[in-house]
Amino acid sequence: MSRILVTGGAGYIGSHTVLQLLEADHLVTVLDNLCNASAESLKRVEQLTGKSLDFVQGDIRDSALLNRLFSESKIEAVIHFAGLKAVGESVEQPLRYYQNNVYGTLVLCEAMQAHGVKNLVFSSSATVYGDPVSLPLVESMPTGRPTNPYGQSKLMVELILKDLFNADPSWNIALLRYFNPVGAHSSGRIGEDPNGIPNNLMPFVAQVATGRREVLNVFGDDYPTADGTGVRDYIHVEDLAAGHLKALDKLQQHAGLKVYNLGTGQGYSVLDMVKAFEQASGKPVPYLIAPRRAGDVASCYADASLAEQELDWKATKGIEEMCQDTWRWQSQNPNGYQGQ
Amino acid sequence: MSRILVTGGAGYIGSHTVLQLLEADHLVTVLDNLCNASAESLKRVEQLTGKSLDFVQGDIRDSALLNRLFSESKIEAVIHFAGLKAVGESVEQPLRYYQNNVYGTLVLCEAMQAHGVKNLVFSSSATVYGDPVSLPLVESMPTGRPTNPYGQSKLMVELILKDLFNADPSWNIALLRYFNPVGAHSSGRIGEDPNGIPNNLMPFVAQVATGRREVLNVFGDDYPTADGTGVRDYIHVEDLAAGHLKALDKLQQHAGLKVYNLGTGQGYSVLDMVKAFEQASGKPVPYLIAPRRAGDVASCYADASLAEQELDWKATKGIEEMCQDTWRWQSQNPNGYQGQ
Repeated sequence: MSRILVTGGAGYIGSHTVLQLLEADHLVTVLDNLCNASAESLKRVEQLTGKSLDFVQGDIRDSALLNRLFSESKIEAVIHFAGLKAVGESVEQPLRYYQNNVYGTLVLCEAMQAHGVKNLVFSSSATVYGDPVSLPLVESMPTGRPTNPYGQSKLMVELILKDLFNADPSWNIALLRYFNPVGAHSSGRIGEDPNGIPNNLMPFVAQVATGRREVLNVFGDDYPTADGTGVRDYIHVEDLAAGHLKALDKLQQHAGLKVYNLGTGQGYSVLDMVKAFEQASGKPVPYLIAPRRAGDVASCYADASLAEQELDWKATKGIEEMCQDTWRWQSQNPNGYQGQ
Repeated sequence: MSRILVTGGAGYIGSHTVLQLLEADHLVTVLDNLCNASAESLKRVEQLTGKSLDFVQGDIRDSALLNRLFSESKIEAVIHFAGLKAVGESVEQPLRYYQNNVYGTLVLCEAMQAHGVKNLVFSSSATVYGDPVSLPLVESMPTGRPTNPYGQSKLMVELILKDLFNADPSWNIALLRYFNPVGAHSSGRIGEDPNGIPNNLMPFVAQVATGRREVLNVFGDDYPTADGTGVRDYIHVEDLAAGHLKALDKLQQHAGLKVYNLGTGQGYSVLDMVKAFEQASGKPVPYLIAPRRAGDVASCYADASLAEQELDWKATKGIEEMCQDTWRWQSQNPNGYQGQ
């Protein structure tokens, strides 16, 4: 079977994707600098699958390391998750975000090009649409102006990869625009383990339910939505991971450059998610209404039909499973991978 | 007097700016990797001014070198010209363009931040407006989608610098959007010396007039303009250089982040420029009409009033002087700096 290099493979989405790659009998090399992830996730992936992977601790900006990796084994494709992802932090440390996310991708692509490895799946984000002009979001819509450096860095990488493809159409590149990944592996053994205070709703909700945090702040209840709170397209991380394997298959058919939304197509409000989580966990999730956050949009959800048509991929897990799996992971690992 | 670091200071616009900085009694350190410039330009700048400058041959991506430069002497401000600028080449080698222009600027800004040097003048371009929605172009218009990696890299740097300023408002940053720089120093000793076949109109016209090239290709004569050829806002390089000194003054007043068009506000067509050049040089400039080039717009010219109001700067040289000075440079240096 072919070997896949997974950058950032120890992280949340990365580890779930690595698990499915191993299950599908791919050989996997993970490159991760562990700045925001734990190698424990990969140990558990090996336990869950009964298969082993190669793990290299290092940075994608280390050109010599990349050249060594591409020289040492025949890599068929790269799934590129590595990157910083905290919106608020990106506002405070923009240069660091552009260095890691944009420059890191440049170094990776140069190494790939030098070694003739031209199949790439890139972790993009729905944030590249900017403030939605209309909903649902369709891949054919023009990209917008992301409201923070994190989102801007994702859009820059998309634009760079498009230019790279235009310059050399022998590349095969899938830009996967994630909506809001939540949930965890059904075993409860791997899941999202954010550093510090979670940026995203579900890890925060889960930490409130376990008692690790006192109360949830709901940012804004006066949006033009059914209950006034923000609406997002939550997608189970196992569905999302499966989308990467489907995208890999597509690249092997010399697909060229492709853009796919990975979402369910269904929006849920913050309060919908809180209620579903209370139900799944049997725990109360106290919340306070706080002011809107700058840069947040009222609603955001995908038209997910293109991925269904072209990749034969569709999200299958609903919010009950998202909440149950998040809860299983969080209650079994109240401090994430820490201390393992 | 204060010391100014000028990256790319041996290049076309850089060398003219360095000359004026020396004339204004600034101390100058030039950092240039000479990948597209000659150190001969700086020797001539020293001859013309009777003053000396520090020249360091090196790359802005060399973080250790930058740290040494900022440690060794007290630098008040940076004028950042260094970058690749050939549109066609950028389409063929996008990674190289993003590496030099975007990553190079990240490394520079990180070194500046580390040494508390927070005054920066950046060489941007009118290309960041994308396809003009209306004319003249005003700084308050939203930026568009540049049609090539060169232009995209300029826009990315603008966005990064805006994020940097938002994160740390103690920076003072001038984004100078150049229109079409032409002309040369009135001495005829320094001027534009492109590698290989010129990308831009005026060096090409000048090389046809000297007989170095046979005929000018005019790309498109069916644009919706007075004579059907493309209209641009040509600006004399000495005027442009003067704008940088005015921008430096502005930064010293803790101006924050400022964006200025540097143009004349007056558009001329390709054929206008050819006729003016024939007149100035007394040489015929034979031309052929060729198909339009992808990505070229019909017309582009500046509203230059903001720089006049806020910087007390205005272009003073008309197309006669632009053509005379280009001709003086080209006829006295038919092979540019080569062989000097």
